[in-house]
Amino acid sequence: MRILITAGPTYEPIDPVRFIGNRSSGRMGSAIAAAGLGAGHCVTVIAGPITVELPPGARRIDVETAAQMHEAVVAEFPRHELLIMAAAVADYRPRAKHPEKMSREGVLVIECEATKDIVAAAAESRRPDQRVVGFSLEAEGNLDRAREKLQRKQLDLIVYNPINTMNSREVRAFLLWADGRSQDVPAIAKEKFAKLLIERTTELFANR
Amino acid sequence: MRILITAGPTYEPIDPVRFIGNRSSGRMGSAIAAAGLGAGHCVTVIAGPITVELPPGARRIDVETAAQMHEAVVAEFPRHELLIMAAAVADYRPRAKHPEKMSREGVLVIECEATKDIVAAAAESRRPDQRVVGFSLEAEGNLDRAREKLQRKQLDLIVYNPINTMNSREVRAFLLWADGRSQDVPAIAKEKFAKLLIERTTELFANR
Repeated sequence: MRILITAGPTYEPIDPVRFIGNRSSGRMGSAIAAAGLGAGHCVTVIAGPITVELPPGARRIDVETAAQMHEAVVAEFPRHELLIMAAAVADYRPRAKHPEKMSREGVLVIECEATKDIVAAAAESRRPDQRVVGFSLEAEGNLDRAREKLQRKQLDLIVYNPINTMNSREVRAFLLWADGRSQDVPAIAKEKFAKLLIERTTELFANR
Repeated sequence: MRILITAGPTYEPIDPVRFIGNRSSGRMGSAIAAAGLGAGHCVTVIAGPITVELPPGARRIDVETAAQMHEAVVAEFPRHELLIMAAAVADYRPRAKHPEKMSREGVLVIECEATKDIVAAAAESRRPDQRVVGFSLEAEGNLDRAREKLQRKQLDLIVYNPINTMNSREVRAFLLWADGRSQDVPAIAKEKFAKLLIERTTELFANR
């Protein structure tokens, strides 16, 4: 199987120096890449600005912004059977990037617009032989919102995890399937969770 | 001599997941710390969220926001003779941190207010036996603005460097002194520049 994995945060520039970022470390995406390679699959990782190492053997494409990640997913997904969107893509970006570094003067108002919903776009464009797995990072216990995202974005599987998963070595997750099934996964190391996730995604192909 | 060095960026939270950051790597602060230790001084580093290593032997205080860095400088400066503000402190922070992760809906407006000017406050409060060195990151060639900062903030010495210094291994700088002297430093490795800077700061104490 050829697996496309997105990992890490995106940075949305405010000016040449400042950006809006988020606390994703890329550790989950890296763990999933390692699990995929360990199971004998071909792995491509589209990585935002991360400092964690990616496993040797993964093909790596570096991006910075949500728009660049979207472009890379559109270009790469056709060559893969499975997309796992583990990146914490910015939902908003500043409408305009200031060409020069801004000085400290009074109040600064940053107007932001929504970025494109990459995982929804990928799911909409997928072929019958392709599967799409999303992540939903929500406040503790907000499973309903993850389920709503699963349906609205027409994903095959969504991983719900609470916000404190971010930048942590462990994950406490729920897997939610399009057909209504779910699996409660107790807090385990991201490496262990990644292996479980790769097993479950393999089943997505058997079930149709 | 006891030297207090600030290093790296600060992160200003928008909500539990997102923040406004900047492209500082902490490499310059780390190099100055190593040069200070190498010259036999005692070194304390107040570090924003950085991934570069600090030299062993430096005392390290970790902070995240501009407000935390300000607090740490106020607490630590009295125990040091020299402050070198190599950190890229955020000039602005969101007025309010959203308690929950915000969803992607329409337009987001982030209202920001100016943070405190740490180096100016430190210079104003300094004893006759203390010296304060600032950094001025400006567009290429904007030396006038660095000179204006040196005077307005009443620093002993300011390092002007162009924006592309950030997150780079080299630096191209001008040193500007309160008495009008200046030194043009061609592009050199940050480690080499750090040694030069420590030499020049030592002279600040001889000259008064």
